[in-house]
Amino acid sequence: MRAQIVTIGDEILIGQITDTNSQFIAGKLDELGFEVRRMLSISDEADDIRLNLDLALESSDCVILTGGLGPTKDDITKTTLANYFGVGFKQVPEVRARVKEIFARYGKEVPEVSYSQSSVPENCTVLMNSNGTAPGMWFETKEGKVVISLPGVPIEMKGLMEEEVLPRLKDHFDLQFNLHRTILTVGMGESEIMGIIGAWEDLLIQKNIKLAYLPSSGRVRLRLSSRGANRDLLDKNLEEEVEKLYQLIPNIIFGEEETDLAEAVGELFRERSMTLSTAESCTGGFIAHRLTSFAGSSEFFKGSVVSYDNEVKTGVLKVEKEVLEEHGAVSREVVEQMAVQVKDIMKTDYAVSVSGIAGPGGGTSEKPVGTVWVGMAGPGGFLKSRKFDFGNQRTANIYRTSNAVLNMLRKQLLK
Amino acid sequence: MRAQIVTIGDEILIGQITDTNSQFIAGKLDELGFEVRRMLSISDEADDIRLNLDLALESSDCVILTGGLGPTKDDITKTTLANYFGVGFKQVPEVRARVKEIFARYGKEVPEVSYSQSSVPENCTVLMNSNGTAPGMWFETKEGKVVISLPGVPIEMKGLMEEEVLPRLKDHFDLQFNLHRTILTVGMGESEIMGIIGAWEDLLIQKNIKLAYLPSSGRVRLRLSSRGANRDLLDKNLEEEVEKLYQLIPNIIFGEEETDLAEAVGELFRERSMTLSTAESCTGGFIAHRLTSFAGSSEFFKGSVVSYDNEVKTGVLKVEKEVLEEHGAVSREVVEQMAVQVKDIMKTDYAVSVSGIAGPGGGTSEKPVGTVWVGMAGPGGFLKSRKFDFGNQRTANIYRTSNAVLNMLRKQLLK
Repeated sequence: MRAQIVTIGDEILIGQITDTNSQFIAGKLDELGFEVRRMLSISDEADDIRLNLDLALESSDCVILTGGLGPTKDDITKTTLANYFGVGFKQVPEVRARVKEIFARYGKEVPEVSYSQSSVPENCTVLMNSNGTAPGMWFETKEGKVVISLPGVPIEMKGLMEEEVLPRLKDHFDLQFNLHRTILTVGMGESEIMGIIGAWEDLLIQKNIKLAYLPSSGRVRLRLSSRGANRDLLDKNLEEEVEKLYQLIPNIIFGEEETDLAEAVGELFRERSMTLSTAESCTGGFIAHRLTSFAGSSEFFKGSVVSYDNEVKTGVLKVEKEVLEEHGAVSREVVEQMAVQVKDIMKTDYAVSVSGIAGPGGGTSEKPVGTVWVGMAGPGGFLKSRKFDFGNQRTANIYRTSNAVLNMLRKQLLK
Repeated sequence: MRAQIVTIGDEILIGQITDTNSQFIAGKLDELGFEVRRMLSISDEADDIRLNLDLALESSDCVILTGGLGPTKDDITKTTLANYFGVGFKQVPEVRARVKEIFARYGKEVPEVSYSQSSVPENCTVLMNSNGTAPGMWFETKEGKVVISLPGVPIEMKGLMEEEVLPRLKDHFDLQFNLHRTILTVGMGESEIMGIIGAWEDLLIQKNIKLAYLPSSGRVRLRLSSRGANRDLLDKNLEEEVEKLYQLIPNIIFGEEETDLAEAVGELFRERSMTLSTAESCTGGFIAHRLTSFAGSSEFFKGSVVSYDNEVKTGVLKVEKEVLEEHGAVSREVVEQMAVQVKDIMKTDYAVSVSGIAGPGGGTSEKPVGTVWVGMAGPGGFLKSRKFDFGNQRTANIYRTSNAVLNMLRKQLLK
């Protein structure tokens, strides 16, 4: 079964807001077994809505629209749908009562205009909205295709999807399964990975499995997808191929599905009952931030010294002044002292340190913007350091550095 | 001039990622004077790409495609475009050199498959990509319409838009003006703001100006928009209304356009030649990260102690053990000591400190998840502290805390 999603609203088209509704709906439809063919955003104009609804119904069995259901004049979806289906309006007392109840909750009188929410096209089934005044609407065409209109406010749309739309879609359509497995890797680019797994990938088609490479900032997600009527078979086939993937690229896989790299590193520390601290210059606390962005981080992360200024490197971290002067802040010698010192100060098993030139200023021909030194200190006098070059975009530079540092930690703990 | 945006990739259609590229491109095209009519997401299938490109060109002067330009097998946009235009491929030595250079930066050999990036459809103008191996491509139809294909990786797409696409579009098309002014506020909710500026807002229609409220995490952006052929007139009208807005809500405006609150605070410190440090517990370095996310932050920001563990609070920050035991880590007494100590250790004019319960665990009935204490120390023994409650969502909690801390600094420096 094929589905399309249409979001309606000028605020999307002028780039004022990110349309997150489409992603939410697409994920839910995909889970249910629909093949989502297109997602579309259009403006609050009747002609556009009619034209695109026609196009969508030509190639899909189900179309979900969001937006344009408010009580004000610029919201025209409901009238447009009544015109599209050539029907008049009916009154729904249940919706009128809900409008009253919602305004009463805030101790307010209902403005007359808000009662217009209880008037809907004659041919629709009303879907009650627990989180707002605008009801959802379910239409069926002569061919058994379904058009659903939902409010654009995310919390209202989500409530309606979960409570009303998904159960009805499951009943109405005879759906297949879409299964996905996402394997998360770090440390190799997509073409490098393809060099290793290319031959395996070519055989996936025999099992009706599609592979996608999804790169971002030094990590590549590998997604295996399969669609069919037999859920157990799909599951088994995917599991077999995921196992082969683990054999082909064991060292770069750090997790599956939505695991963040920092969380995967945290898990390794927790399993080993070990602790970690950081000393950060150019990353300015970003690695500490990532390591404290998930629940349970206090079990392994003790703290950080953000030594943005050289005085803090010498004053708090006790980096030797002579070393700093001789080698410069961005050097092997300095990051090694930073790592050893912060490990000592914070009394942790491991410590990592970073010093680099985040940019846009501060680069030299010898140490251009993007040069980053990373140090790592560990148990029994373990000490390691490495130089990276991450290019001249400040924000990307900071993010890539954090990925590289987290991956160094991951590899070290897995040794 | 009308434009459409088409993002290509199954990861969007199955709801695995939010498509943020469309918003970015839409915003830029709108700024340039285009009317963005539709945004569309489709799968990596040749037929879909061709069909939708046809549809898009029927009703638009410019179509921007993103995605599907990687060197791996699932990426088919380039081949599909060559077929669509009925042309072969040409080699671009400049791209080949760029591929080499990028792999060299990571000290890696170029996998043969990556050189395929230097092969592009004969009829395109190559747009060099500063942040990756896949070039952008610019096509012109016989009718003078433009099709642009960009990589889907956001940083690469953004670089190409700014450096190559926008200047060329400006030259190629004779565009009207869409002008916007965005005023950034912090400290009041949107309905509170509306209560103050509502009467002024009602008069904007006379000047052909639209107002939008864009709330997020304790800040509200107010966007004034106007469209027309006379740029000077649009500018003058917008400027007049912005001035009125400054008179209506002077205390909550912290900047305009894309200024980040942290950057606005940094600017205040730089103007006063003053310095800042932070001591962070529940925010885990996030405030330091925000304060070091823009160029020039080393002029005022000296560093941070992330004291996630209580031992670091007593060991490094010298918070008194008795105070910590008596009042608990999340208390006025502890954040005040943290602020005073880190100011002293880092030798800065101001220091801020944070201790709170980020969640999901760790809450008590007296101090529920979301309770955050903030301390601020300044010149001449200045010391202040404040308690907040930011609710039980960990990530939102950390972000809202950082906004509150930055706004406390902003207001203090403006005194």
